[in-house]
Amino acid sequence: MKPHEEQARRAKECTAALRRASGESRSAAIRAMAAGLRARSAAIVEANRGDLERAGKDGLGAAKLDRLKLDANRVEEMARGLEAVAAQPDPVGRVADERVGPSGIRVRRVRVPLGVILMVFEARPNVTAEAAALCLRSSNAALLRGGREAAGSNRAIGECLQAALAKEGLPADSVQMVEGGHEAVDDLLKLDRYIDVVIPRGGEGLIRSVAEKSRIPVIKHYKGNCHVYVDKAADAAMAESVVLNAKVQRPGTCNAAEKLLIHERVAATLLPRIAGALKAAGVELRGDVAARALLPGIKAAVESDWPEEYLDLVMAVKVVKDLDEAIRHINEFGSSHTDAIVTGDAAAAGRFLNEVDSSSVMWNCSTRLADGGQYGLGAEIGISTDRLHARGPMGAEELTCLKWVVEGDGQLRQ
Amino acid sequence: MKPHEEQARRAKECTAALRRASGESRSAAIRAMAAGLRARSAAIVEANRGDLERAGKDGLGAAKLDRLKLDANRVEEMARGLEAVAAQPDPVGRVADERVGPSGIRVRRVRVPLGVILMVFEARPNVTAEAAALCLRSSNAALLRGGREAAGSNRAIGECLQAALAKEGLPADSVQMVEGGHEAVDDLLKLDRYIDVVIPRGGEGLIRSVAEKSRIPVIKHYKGNCHVYVDKAADAAMAESVVLNAKVQRPGTCNAAEKLLIHERVAATLLPRIAGALKAAGVELRGDVAARALLPGIKAAVESDWPEEYLDLVMAVKVVKDLDEAIRHINEFGSSHTDAIVTGDAAAAGRFLNEVDSSSVMWNCSTRLADGGQYGLGAEIGISTDRLHARGPMGAEELTCLKWVVEGDGQLRQ
Repeated sequence: MKPHEEQARRAKECTAALRRASGESRSAAIRAMAAGLRARSAAIVEANRGDLERAGKDGLGAAKLDRLKLDANRVEEMARGLEAVAAQPDPVGRVADERVGPSGIRVRRVRVPLGVILMVFEARPNVTAEAAALCLRSSNAALLRGGREAAGSNRAIGECLQAALAKEGLPADSVQMVEGGHEAVDDLLKLDRYIDVVIPRGGEGLIRSVAEKSRIPVIKHYKGNCHVYVDKAADAAMAESVVLNAKVQRPGTCNAAEKLLIHERVAATLLPRIAGALKAAGVELRGDVAARALLPGIKAAVESDWPEEYLDLVMAVKVVKDLDEAIRHINEFGSSHTDAIVTGDAAAAGRFLNEVDSSSVMWNCSTRLADGGQYGLGAEIGISTDRLHARGPMGAEELTCLKWVVEGDGQLRQ
Repeated sequence: MKPHEEQARRAKECTAALRRASGESRSAAIRAMAAGLRARSAAIVEANRGDLERAGKDGLGAAKLDRLKLDANRVEEMARGLEAVAAQPDPVGRVADERVGPSGIRVRRVRVPLGVILMVFEARPNVTAEAAALCLRSSNAALLRGGREAAGSNRAIGECLQAALAKEGLPADSVQMVEGGHEAVDDLLKLDRYIDVVIPRGGEGLIRSVAEKSRIPVIKHYKGNCHVYVDKAADAAMAESVVLNAKVQRPGTCNAAEKLLIHERVAATLLPRIAGALKAAGVELRGDVAARALLPGIKAAVESDWPEEYLDLVMAVKVVKDLDEAIRHINEFGSSHTDAIVTGDAAAAGRFLNEVDSSSVMWNCSTRLADGGQYGLGAEIGISTDRLHARGPMGAEELTCLKWVVEGDGQLRQ
């Protein structure tokens, strides 16, 4: 058996002990992980320095180097993140509903762990500890495969995590770092007898590749082509601030807005004002014919702009005839991630929230708020663009499923 | 565009109207479907007679011919089944939870339809109407692909269903029968831009083939290798009646028991009694060494018996040392479908219910009760053996997902 196959087998073995482990012991282990990270902060930063040197020599870009980098402050942030997860309510064992069947059996659905979760992610060592904590909060065994550039950092972090598990009497193999090349990941994706769910996090290419190769169910996190629709009844100042924040606060994220739709009745007065604010923030605008008539000199938007996720300071603008056209456009070209309406008209908002088919629909706030922390979930393991199981930000509860527990007094099927 | 691709495109188009349709209008359409089936009962039975003749000539087996067959009583049963679905509470629009995020945004999760559901099933025309009704109850568009042997019956049923939709002002293409050979199904499984979920129902071969070919998420309904564990603290009469019912009441179903585990301390007294009842009902027993010592003359169980689903009057018996061995055996060889313990010991039951990793775990009742109707769900669209999204019996609620609806007063991301 190859080393990573052996790891998967051991992860599956841990699930029996994890099903028996109390919520309190799992919280204690997560707190011990935080303490361990703090105690070994210097060693982790030292290991990370090695990763950074190798990655720098290999020509990794500045943005990726920044994501890879750890320092004492970032290790402290990781520790605090773990403590927040430890303080979250335990999803395991929660009763979702109860009823009595026609034969008199008592039927309830209870939250249980999924089993073994394989996370495949890029070279962001801060994801490592958070993913481990969320899996343990939900009583799952975790196989963590971070980007190879972060191998040294992840090894140092993984040692802290395993030591904490052992300290609290939980099997150390409940959290394992997976090393090895792409072939190791490809092998793991076939081990459906050991692994229950795969969650890839990273660029669209990584996610498509995992989804295509996997025999195990994958929860996918595809792109976000998010829209802000400024309705005819929008407050002008709110429309400007929401569009600006949604576009520029952090343009490289999946919940940043990529498209601005504006009702034709307010376009002449509002669009120049909003466009001025966007341009001042360095945003390149691309418009349809009507938008360009109001914003002379901007580039023309072409067909391929409407479905595109720029992840950059670029925004395409379209003037729409009415709410119906806005909804139709979003449902046709959007990515079902996050879309917002700015309006003072509750009826228009109601239709938008109901009829736009996205995982998050928003009224009068920035798409950048589509996030587990902002929704009050605590940490999130990602934002699902799937429909089954979990849509949108996923916290610990989304790493569980419901099992039917049935109690009777000898009932038979008639 | 091929005819079935055109059907899938039209199904997607219906989803906008379905998102706007009230629960009452969808109930009314389901009731109109029931009325339509009754009004055209003779024509449906006549079309079914044609299917039966062709299938008889093609040499379809007796059990399959019986499943294919409709008469006036079975059409009436179908109509009543639809009325029961129409009377169910509407899952769409239900608020699962609400909270206020740290920025003051009001966040709630609301049940929404999945979109377009493709059902692939065998030649059982009674499934056709029920699947259509469950999809409409949950506001999904349905593409229904029943076994080719039932094509005439399904066409006649489909006409009733579409007429009822049109009568109630809903798009008739919300429910479409898909014809054409296996190539048509293979094509549909690639149309992830139109279809959101695939639910195959039938033998394991059909389900594996669909799961392998599909680019669309599949909710799978694999086999049921269900266990009854008779604990040392079991009531003897209850143990006998539960095992007998679980095995023989309908042995061809996925929730029939295939394995009997019995605690060694009660095996000598209880096993001969239970085995006597099983043999009297025509069950072939296969035992491990200890069981054969108590039941002379029965066949030996071999390694391949433990994971097998017989779907027949066959049962393998194993004497276990204790509860731990029973749990380990079930988690290793079972299919995570439905497993039961018979015991008067609440602590033993508690451990079994918590530690057996199956979609349904039962205490003191027959595994044959693992069923949407018996659980009080009303009709079911199948029994999922997946972990993600839905485990066990799936009713209308499992054909929906949760969307995040966020309302603010201009909140931005800091």
